[in-house]
Amino acid sequence: MVRAEIITIGDEILYGQILDTNTQWISLELDKIGIKTVRKSSVGDQRDEIVQILHEAQKRADIVFITGGLGPTKDDLTKKILADFFNCPLAYHPEALQDVTDFFAKRGRELSDINRDQALLPTKCTFIPNKQGTAPAMWFNEQDTIWVSMPGVPFEMKAIMETEVLPRITTHFKLPVIVHQIRKVVGIGESYLSDLIQDWELQLPSHLKLAYLPSLGIVKLRLTGFGQDKVQLHADIEAEFEKVMPLIKGYIFGREKDELASVVGQLLVDQQATLAVAESCTGGYLAHQFTQHAGSSAYFQGGIISYANEVKVKQLGVSQDILDTEGAVSDTCVMAMAAGARKNLGTTYALATSGIAGPDGGTDEKPVGTIWIALAHPNGVIARKLTQGGTRIQNIHLSSLTAINLLRRYLLNDLAE
Amino acid sequence: MVRAEIITIGDEILYGQILDTNTQWISLELDKIGIKTVRKSSVGDQRDEIVQILHEAQKRADIVFITGGLGPTKDDLTKKILADFFNCPLAYHPEALQDVTDFFAKRGRELSDINRDQALLPTKCTFIPNKQGTAPAMWFNEQDTIWVSMPGVPFEMKAIMETEVLPRITTHFKLPVIVHQIRKVVGIGESYLSDLIQDWELQLPSHLKLAYLPSLGIVKLRLTGFGQDKVQLHADIEAEFEKVMPLIKGYIFGREKDELASVVGQLLVDQQATLAVAESCTGGYLAHQFTQHAGSSAYFQGGIISYANEVKVKQLGVSQDILDTEGAVSDTCVMAMAAGARKNLGTTYALATSGIAGPDGGTDEKPVGTIWIALAHPNGVIARKLTQGGTRIQNIHLSSLTAINLLRRYLLNDLAE
Repeated sequence: MVRAEIITIGDEILYGQILDTNTQWISLELDKIGIKTVRKSSVGDQRDEIVQILHEAQKRADIVFITGGLGPTKDDLTKKILADFFNCPLAYHPEALQDVTDFFAKRGRELSDINRDQALLPTKCTFIPNKQGTAPAMWFNEQDTIWVSMPGVPFEMKAIMETEVLPRITTHFKLPVIVHQIRKVVGIGESYLSDLIQDWELQLPSHLKLAYLPSLGIVKLRLTGFGQDKVQLHADIEAEFEKVMPLIKGYIFGREKDELASVVGQLLVDQQATLAVAESCTGGYLAHQFTQHAGSSAYFQGGIISYANEVKVKQLGVSQDILDTEGAVSDTCVMAMAAGARKNLGTTYALATSGIAGPDGGTDEKPVGTIWIALAHPNGVIARKLTQGGTRIQNIHLSSLTAINLLRRYLLNDLAE
Repeated sequence: MVRAEIITIGDEILYGQILDTNTQWISLELDKIGIKTVRKSSVGDQRDEIVQILHEAQKRADIVFITGGLGPTKDDLTKKILADFFNCPLAYHPEALQDVTDFFAKRGRELSDINRDQALLPTKCTFIPNKQGTAPAMWFNEQDTIWVSMPGVPFEMKAIMETEVLPRITTHFKLPVIVHQIRKVVGIGESYLSDLIQDWELQLPSHLKLAYLPSLGIVKLRLTGFGQDKVQLHADIEAEFEKVMPLIKGYIFGREKDELASVVGQLLVDQQATLAVAESCTGGYLAHQFTQHAGSSAYFQGGIISYANEVKVKQLGVSQDILDTEGAVSDTCVMAMAAGARKNLGTTYALATSGIAGPDGGTDEKPVGTIWIALAHPNGVIARKLTQGGTRIQNIHLSSLTAINLLRRYLLNDLAE
């Protein structure tokens, strides 16, 4: 089995100023292609510490990933050390120089000497372009080990891994056959889910392994198959997921990289329908769930963020009477908001939210986490109440997810329960 | 200086199933009391790997923190290895046995043999109670090193550290004084910032150390002071930040944990002013930057998300003529949007965005990343154009930040450049 070690360079991670999420992401990606991570380490911006960990890692691993310690403000520590470690000079790399020149030209900014020096690379490295930033990545095949050095900025590192490094790894190493498939579940907690599917889990064949990967409001069910034949493994996994479907049908919304809002957006497009939102407690976050995805303008018309009650009245036509008697956090208010958005923006559907996200504003009757959501559709309006006691961000996130899921189940004619 | 090493034990972290947040938390706590973390490592549930890292850590550190590998599901791997490592047997510890007995009695659950064995500890350890769970922590003073082993469950570990371990550490070691302060910068890239302040950086006294901590659109400047006197160090750092202020005044928006939108929100509250937004390309994300923070309802009234042109016309009063001749991504359109939101929502200020977030929709004339932002204020409307070529999410994030920063600078009468 190919053994990997992941090294993070930087005082900001060592001293805890930044939470390192790169290392987890890399190890998950390696796990998917059958590479075993054997050690993760974090060291500071100190030459002797970096040299020491490189020596140690070489003994343990077939491939070593290094993030951080690149860029002008880090004095390009990592690449200078790698040049010494592999006993070669730094030199301007023509492609790297072209990339950094283009990067600045495209933005109409001048190329300073410091930025030009981003193109100085150890001569023994294979240049790996960084389309998102100015510090290139490097690939070395030295001392019977593959070394990959990447910038520490997460979105730059991820893009480099996905487009450049992972393809090189699968070419370079003979990797075992491992197949993963994911089904994504919403609207049910991990422990209830596990109760529902435990009999199915127990009958899984031994070459398929189940993992629960929970995040806020969503659980990913991952089946991993180990064997010789990729096509067969895919078929085995598909067959098992088919078996579990009847048990949790209404909760499964997608697979692999599907996002809930995109899945719902596609349903709307398929039905040639449009959507608007009316947001109080979610304050724009519900709309963002849709608009963060390319193509959302095909169905998403817009919305009203009615934080203040006057905006609910004036822009959404909620009656002052409802606000005075029932309050903004009520089924009647949120239903009026949804109906108002649907009417004023002229859409097929509208979702609305109104609640107490916290940490302040709760009462005995309506504690923090009391949130109403509503869906206005061509034949009426429906509302649901949530009671959840998380942080403000959690409450905003979960109520947005729940609203989107309400629309999903409506579009699928699946609102029986 | 006291040197610390932090070791995480567990396959679930090594393979990336769980994000390790314990290590960051511990290093931040250590940093506060002047202990320098020199290495963070993560190993799996493998005896030989754990023994190896213990040997390595002993050479590097004065104090070693170990989390995980305790409890029945882990077969109490860590404590068995520590007993062997320090050459002593495991024995029932009376206080530990009492604690675990009480823990189950209190919950009306039977004490199984497996749970009783939680009280089996290496005889050389000092028992450290765990009030939140059943696996106790351990403190060893062996081989000229302090060793602290704690369970990996974050809330158990934190409680043990705060109530038991940190007090023991400050008694055991003679600790130096370290002070950190942060200033946060927006609207300027890391390399330009570094050019602007390089003379200041070069003249810093040797007991103060500068770090750049960049994230998308924001750079944190951190000065760390090493010395004897906390008050003096704070004063030294303040004095240095005072010196650099004139060089980058307009860019600094806050310190320590300040968030840009909260800082601007506070300026609005101070001026008894209110805010609305009109969002096209940012699609709700700009509003979310404000509404994610508690207290935003004091100034944030709401907004119009005008994804479709009809919404720009109907809800914001943008003339069809502008859309036909200049298009939605234009200074005239975004200015009309801001003015319309300010008027219709009756606020002091309104921010608007309209642009091409991508990845589709770009043209030669208006490529992806062309984004207009506008601010409507009591005396008129101003607009700014951004040209940035990132991903959709980056474009949404950076244009929201830039819009908020435009308002910040307006509120501070600082729009000269």
